[in-house]
Amino acid sequence: MAILVVGSVAFDSIETPQGRRDRCLGGAATYFALAASYFTDVRVIAVVGEDFTAEHEAVLTRRGVDTQGLEHTSGKSFHWTGSYVKSLNEAQTLKTELNVFESFSPKVPAAYRDSEFLFLANIDPVLQSSVRRQMPKVRMVCGDTMNYWITGHRANLAKVLTGLDALLINDGEAKLLADDTNLVLAARKILEMGPKALIVKHGEYGATAFFSEHPFNGEGAARMTLPFRAPALPLDRVVDPTGAGDSFAGGFFGYLASQQQVTLKNFKQAMFYGGVMGSFAVQRFGTEQMQSLTREEIDQRFALFRELSHLD
Amino acid sequence: MAILVVGSVAFDSIETPQGRRDRCLGGAATYFALAASYFTDVRVIAVVGEDFTAEHEAVLTRRGVDTQGLEHTSGKSFHWTGSYVKSLNEAQTLKTELNVFESFSPKVPAAYRDSEFLFLANIDPVLQSSVRRQMPKVRMVCGDTMNYWITGHRANLAKVLTGLDALLINDGEAKLLADDTNLVLAARKILEMGPKALIVKHGEYGATAFFSEHPFNGEGAARMTLPFRAPALPLDRVVDPTGAGDSFAGGFFGYLASQQQVTLKNFKQAMFYGGVMGSFAVQRFGTEQMQSLTREEIDQRFALFRELSHLD
Repeated sequence: MAILVVGSVAFDSIETPQGRRDRCLGGAATYFALAASYFTDVRVIAVVGEDFTAEHEAVLTRRGVDTQGLEHTSGKSFHWTGSYVKSLNEAQTLKTELNVFESFSPKVPAAYRDSEFLFLANIDPVLQSSVRRQMPKVRMVCGDTMNYWITGHRANLAKVLTGLDALLINDGEAKLLADDTNLVLAARKILEMGPKALIVKHGEYGATAFFSEHPFNGEGAARMTLPFRAPALPLDRVVDPTGAGDSFAGGFFGYLASQQQVTLKNFKQAMFYGGVMGSFAVQRFGTEQMQSLTREEIDQRFALFRELSHLD
Repeated sequence: MAILVVGSVAFDSIETPQGRRDRCLGGAATYFALAASYFTDVRVIAVVGEDFTAEHEAVLTRRGVDTQGLEHTSGKSFHWTGSYVKSLNEAQTLKTELNVFESFSPKVPAAYRDSEFLFLANIDPVLQSSVRRQMPKVRMVCGDTMNYWITGHRANLAKVLTGLDALLINDGEAKLLADDTNLVLAARKILEMGPKALIVKHGEYGATAFFSEHPFNGEGAARMTLPFRAPALPLDRVVDPTGAGDSFAGGFFGYLASQQQVTLKNFKQAMFYGGVMGSFAVQRFGTEQMQSLTREEIDQRFALFRELSHLD
């Protein structure tokens, strides 16, 4: 079933210990859409400027991503400049040029309205809410956010959290959002803010899902208060960490949307697929790796993740 | 089969956000021995001072630990004073009083010579080597170390590493030992120093085992280059992190020693038991929790670890 994603389609200028790339195609919605495209149909809502060419759009459409909701406007596309030279674990933002995103007002095309799954990538919570309102019949909504919105736009973010089936953030964001240094206590507080599930991404250590009392019906519902931990793949070479979290989200939600039902079992498998797509994303610069995978390679790595973490 | 452990039996004065304890029984060998005692016979080699009473010794003997190798001497026992008030993830050492450990020369009692498993807990590598030499027929040797020995006593430590079947250290120690910030590359370098396996403990994120080409015979040997990741239990209350790593080691090695053969399958199970014992250790002050478990509680938590991390 189709996923609709709203978020940034942008250009990234990135420096890592392995080299640098200037103005390569990036943005949370781009990484998410590419990663999810290996599992299900994906539709994108974002805004781009005149510097976004047919060649850039083809990166998405070649993977079957529906770009009807990509609004072309005058001006320049969102441009992020960052460095991982000091640490691969945390991006150092050198410059953020919002450009066309400053006055973005997302509109859901009529042809997108039947999307059953909605992903609110990391953008202004006001825009996240606007898209959410335009999709009253959506079946499952997941979202992301970041420190900037948590500290400076908390009231708007709170409205988004109320309607989420799952929130995907990292350790630091979870602790900041809950104002608690213990991850389990932080998770409990965040689940009280609305999300039925919270996925905390630990970078090279994998990810943990926490659940509210009964987020799913049926199978496994009774045991739902136990968290679930998915591994990450130990990698001997991380080329570019940009987009790892968005690729995790794309793998996670893409797999979930491809299944008949959102059960605990499928949720767990989806966590593993999230880790798989995150591990691919960092192995090359920008979206290079996300553009050129096969489902067979993905499933082989899924098998590796299982072997890496399972007793038998 | 019996494990012989050499390491510190000491008193700890600990301050954590949950309170403080003065001069409670601690030391790496104590935590290790108590944790391993739930799985197999344990023998201890250490030195204690006049402040170590029959009551303290009974903490070990009540769990069936053989204390023949506990040397009583004049002077005071090793005393560590530390705080976790700033961070539960890293101990802040306030004072280290080696006392009787300054002139310790470990002697393996004749009755210990048939121990098939040897654990060299975190002490001076010269002492680790001395015990190793006295146990020429031992079947499997695991060891621990810390930053202090890595930076200041590298040549002595190198000799210990040559003879290890498995080295158990944390992320920071592994990266320091290998002088590499990438964990996989660090692991490769460390495996070249001698250990057949390296277990890197990630605290609240679990632990990862890396293997040299063919550390075991038989089952699974061909696939040995793939690491293995064991989870940690997300806890809503950490009372005292002291001894978590030593308890992990005790659970890991204790389980392994209790099995007929050291196979890959048993090694993986042992990693899980390590995590289980580590998760118990931090739930109360000092060794309180390690003194009072049952094997049933341990196996229940093992089942929880499996459910927490397995797809089916």
